[in-house]
Amino acid sequence: MPEAVETMDGWYCLHDLRTIDWTSWKLASNEERQAAINELQQLVSKWEDVESSKNGSHALYRITGQKADIIFMILRPTMEELQEVETAFNKSTFAAYTVPAYSYVSVVELSKYMAKGGEDPEQNPEIQARLKPTLPKWNHICFYPMDKRRQGNDNWYMLPKDDRSKLMYEHSKTGRKYAGKIRQIITGSMGFDDWEWGVTLFAHDVLEIKKLVYEMRFDEVSARYAEFGAFFVGNILKKEEIPSYLQI
Amino acid sequence: MPEAVETMDGWYCLHDLRTIDWTSWKLASNEERQAAINELQQLVSKWEDVESSKNGSHALYRITGQKADIIFMILRPTMEELQEVETAFNKSTFAAYTVPAYSYVSVVELSKYMAKGGEDPEQNPEIQARLKPTLPKWNHICFYPMDKRRQGNDNWYMLPKDDRSKLMYEHSKTGRKYAGKIRQIITGSMGFDDWEWGVTLFAHDVLEIKKLVYEMRFDEVSARYAEFGAFFVGNILKKEEIPSYLQI
Amino acid sequence: MPEAVETMDGWYCLHDLRTIDWTSWKLASNEERQAAINELQQLVSKWEDVESSKNGSHALYRITGQKADIIFMILRPTMEELQEVETAFNKSTFAAYTVPAYSYVSVVELSKYMAKGGEDPEQNPEIQARLKPTLPKWNHICFYPMDKRRQGNDNWYMLPKDDRSKLMYEHSKTGRKYAGKIRQIITGSMGFDDWEWGVTLFAHDVLEIKKLVYEMRFDEVSARYAEFGAFFVGNILKKEEIPSYLQI
Amino acid sequence: MPEAVETMDGWYCLHDLRTIDWTSWKLASNEERQAAINELQQLVSKWEDVESSKNGSHALYRITGQKADIIFMILRPTMEELQEVETAFNKSTFAAYTVPAYSYVSVVELSKYMAKGGEDPEQNPEIQARLKPTLPKWNHICFYPMDKRRQGNDNWYMLPKDDRSKLMYEHSKTGRKYAGKIRQIITGSMGFDDWEWGVTLFAHDVLEIKKLVYEMRFDEVSARYAEFGAFFVGNILKKEEIPSYLQI
Amino acid sequence: MPEAVETMDGWYCLHDLRTIDWTSWKLASNEERQAAINELQQLVSKWEDVESSKNGSHALYRITGQKADIIFMILRPTMEELQEVETAFNKSTFAAYTVPAYSYVSVVELSKYMAKGGEDPEQNPEIQARLKPTLPKWNHICFYPMDKRRQGNDNWYMLPKDDRSKLMYEHSKTGRKYAGKIRQIITGSMGFDDWEWGVTLFAHDVLEIKKLVYEMRFDEVSARYAEFGAFFVGNILKKEEIPSYLQI
Repeated sequence: MPEAVETMDGWYCLHDLRTIDWTSWKLASNEERQAAINELQQLVSKWEDVESSKNGSHALYRITGQKADIIFMILRPTMEELQEVETAFNKSTFAAYTVPAYSYVSVVELSKYMAKGGEDPEQNPEIQARLKPTLPKWNHICFYPMDKRRQGNDNWYMLPKDDRSKLMYEHSKTGRKYAGKIRQIITGSMGFDDWEWGVTLFAHDVLEIKKLVYEMRFDEVSARYAEFGAFFVGNILKKEEIPSYLQI
Repeated sequence: MPEAVETMDGWYCLHDLRTIDWTSWKLASNEERQAAINELQQLVSKWEDVESSKNGSHALYRITGQKADIIFMILRPTMEELQEVETAFNKSTFAAYTVPAYSYVSVVELSKYMAKGGEDPEQNPEIQARLKPTLPKWNHICFYPMDKRRQGNDNWYMLPKDDRSKLMYEHSKTGRKYAGKIRQIITGSMGFDDWEWGVTLFAHDVLEIKKLVYEMRFDEVSARYAEFGAFFVGNILKKEEIPSYLQI
Repeated sequence: MPEAVETMDGWYCLHDLRTIDWTSWKLASNEERQAAINELQQLVSKWEDVESSKNGSHALYRITGQKADIIFMILRPTMEELQEVETAFNKSTFAAYTVPAYSYVSVVELSKYMAKGGEDPEQNPEIQARLKPTLPKWNHICFYPMDKRRQGNDNWYMLPKDDRSKLMYEHSKTGRKYAGKIRQIITGSMGFDDWEWGVTLFAHDVLEIKKLVYEMRFDEVSARYAEFGAFFVGNILKKEEIPSYLQI
Repeated sequence: MPEAVETMDGWYCLHDLRTIDWTSWKLASNEERQAAINELQQLVSKWEDVESSKNGSHALYRITGQKADIIFMILRPTMEELQEVETAFNKSTFAAYTVPAYSYVSVVELSKYMAKGGEDPEQNPEIQARLKPTLPKWNHICFYPMDKRRQGNDNWYMLPKDDRSKLMYEHSKTGRKYAGKIRQIITGSMGFDDWEWGVTLFAHDVLEIKKLVYEMRFDEVSARYAEFGAFFVGNILKKEEIPSYLQI
Repeated sequence: MPEAVETMDGWYCLHDLRTIDWTSWKLASNEERQAAINELQQLVSKWEDVESSKNGSHALYRITGQKADIIFMILRPTMEELQEVETAFNKSTFAAYTVPAYSYVSVVELSKYMAKGGEDPEQNPEIQARLKPTLPKWNHICFYPMDKRRQGNDNWYMLPKDDRSKLMYEHSKTGRKYAGKIRQIITGSMGFDDWEWGVTLFAHDVLEIKKLVYEMRFDEVSARYAEFGAFFVGNILKKEEIPSYLQI
């Protein structure tokens, strides 16, 4: 039985993707639309207050293509608070003009694959900050879930720990080339959702996302051991841009 | 032909997951909503009576994410009673404001892989209690269905019984580490539903669910022989919390 | 090219599974519901007449879980008559309160794998009765479609006929243990539907279904060569129980 | 790089499967229904005129089971004409009472695997007739799409041409046994639809379809190299039977 | 770790496929339909202006079969502009009579597999033109997404770069045979959408699309290493043809 690498876990995370029902939105009266927009902005303002007080964080982006129109990525200290955010959105006026597109439940995770000998990562303040991160407000987002493969000779969970550590270390070197260009949040979801991890990338230049994902695919850990779910990509939606985005 | 391990079977089990149609719920009048809530609470009260008289058990949780909003897990002595609970819910007022999300039909199951020599497990009162369990009212639930793999060299059903017993024993040691933190109910579903088993985990701390599932994935029985379905995770919904949860 | 085993084919078979739209059913008036129930009972009476005159057979069960609410299993001498039954149901009042859930088109089939030397199975009256069976009215039903696997080294259709016969013979021994407890109807569907066979099990005690399917999974023919579709399980719905089942 | 076998291509082909929305059909007035039926019959009459003048062909069948209610199989000399037929149906009154169930876009294809040495198949009048066929009006239809497998050691496209020719020749011998009982139309769809070929079988006796598909599955080209999509089977719907079929 | 081949990236690309809701379109008044058609033509006129000023390009085709009715393929210099085009369409009157069918987000991509030694492809004006192409207005379109396979011994991303270059070179020779008959646009989508590449083919004669795809399937790079998504094929829809196409 291979030895599991311990993980460190931080804030709980909900990726909530919605498709706007533009037909019913267009049929609504100007007053109804304006009320829905106001309420949505107030909801975002509440999230901003939580973020300011370091009790959570959020990201709000528009998704390109038909898979969804908007994504809320929400971080909260407990699963209960996460669910409250989701329920509050469901009860909002704007939610009635949207259709669920996809969601993902996970928790911010750091692995100890690369922990230095003798160091207690739980005491490292940088690590603590990464477990309870304030999400960047960069131009672009990319989200996708993934598994480590368990098929025939390509079975990640049957590899000795040292082999896994070495493969992850090589992989991390690819990621480090994109420092400052890409901010990556890894969230673990075993027991919480259908895939094992969620990967969220933030970028100033959306092309850097493609370059990173492409380059990483040649890493053995991806080439042989990764299974990928759906990919969602989009542009930031600032609170003040909501009215013009939703204007008919 | 490998020898099958006998199983012991207890109460029949229905996992019934529903998505709330918040849009139509918001369009309902206050009176209609109140009537639906009252009727739903009365339904839960009936389930509580059955549980008190040891004729069944149930769990009621809210699911995080878009896969569902609520889960009823129902245990009953017969398949007919199980179906009556389902039909009674379908005929209720609240049901009209929900959409089916997923369901799972199974029966509480204990395997004899680890039965001690000479012991008749059917006569063991502890085992009888586990076959007709009162479900815990802990903070969190996790439910997922699973199969044992039958692919190429990773074919569980072609393994000799002794190999299977050994792998299951190793696996049970991982589970035992979580005693007191996680309560696990295994239900068998061959011939009843699309996957072979349902796994339901109850936890005080939701993070223990992730830790258990993660650690177990490195057990050879999971790494090489397990196929997993969808994972549902959530927070308890007490009967008295129903009105506030559903308040618009 | 391996030699195909001939099959004997009897009555055509439709498994028709429907989900009741309880919301619209509840919105219907008492009169409308009563008329729909009367018409449905008349339809079943017609099926009973056909069965009495040995021109077909049928089974009517309630399905447990959300996959469907009811299943009609219909046997008729021709594909045209089968389609007439389906169309007549589609035109009925009750059908408008249901949504199609799943269907399966096949023909009652017996294989000659185990034919005794020298015997002409087509002349065997017992075999003829099994090709045009009157379906039992036992308490429980289980239906699932399946394929024989064609993957890598596990390719049923590349095995020599003698190997297939031997594996099927072993398999039949498992089935024979359940004589009197389980009645099994095999229907072939190559060219008629997406899977190769449909398996329908009738049981007095639903737990026997689980035991049979579980035990058989360790037979090499299942372990290495079977692919399974969805499983549907349920309880009998007698004609006289229809009104109470559908009562609001 | 294995050598590709050239194909000969004839008329473009659309398989268009529709499910009738019986609930809305029943809600329509008698006048609306009669108008829709008249228009549908006129549409079929136009198709008959095209067929008479050898500018195309068509088949109209009822599908058994819930996958669809009716199938139109349309052959036309150009992709543009094919699309015109589809659009004309979409604009018809009856189309509003149907829901798309499945469609398949392809072109009648003959392979040169079995071309005799020295012969130019393009000059063979029999081959030309088979590329622009008048579809038979036999009692039954079966349609399914398929791929040649590309998996591990079972990779059709990596086989030498001679091996493929030999396997196809063996396969054709199975088919030839059914001459007069089954008429088979092969349509190629690479670049046009998700599978590589569509197979359409016409039969006087529907059981011959099952026997052919079953027997062929043991041919190595099917056993090792075929992947199958959904199977649709049904009974002929003559133009004059449309009113009684659709009568409420 | 195999070395990744660098790619050159040009304009961002959205394939937006829509199904027309013919039933609601027929229910609309003549005035509503005419207004929707006028607005749609104005939208296309705007796209034409962008194309004229070399700030993007577009293609508008009708899709054959039920998978979709129309496809917009849009090229723009930034992901933000791409999203604006999508949102503008969503807000249009005609959009309310359509249902999303499929979309694909990518970026025009050229690989450096075949770059000549010493040449800087980024400085090549022909390459720059291919990265920001004006899409041809040829009769037919074919679009499909694809992956390079990562399975067992058929793992593209584990091959040495030289092997990949050789396989791609062989593949390109097949493509070059169709020069003048087929125009191919490759768009990369790692990190942007679920598949790794989108392939869009334009042809004067739709049969050339089938021939190209068929011939290429025997190239080892396709036979062993390609996984294909859905294929969409169709005929050009010129702006001036929109009214007659949509006329009821």
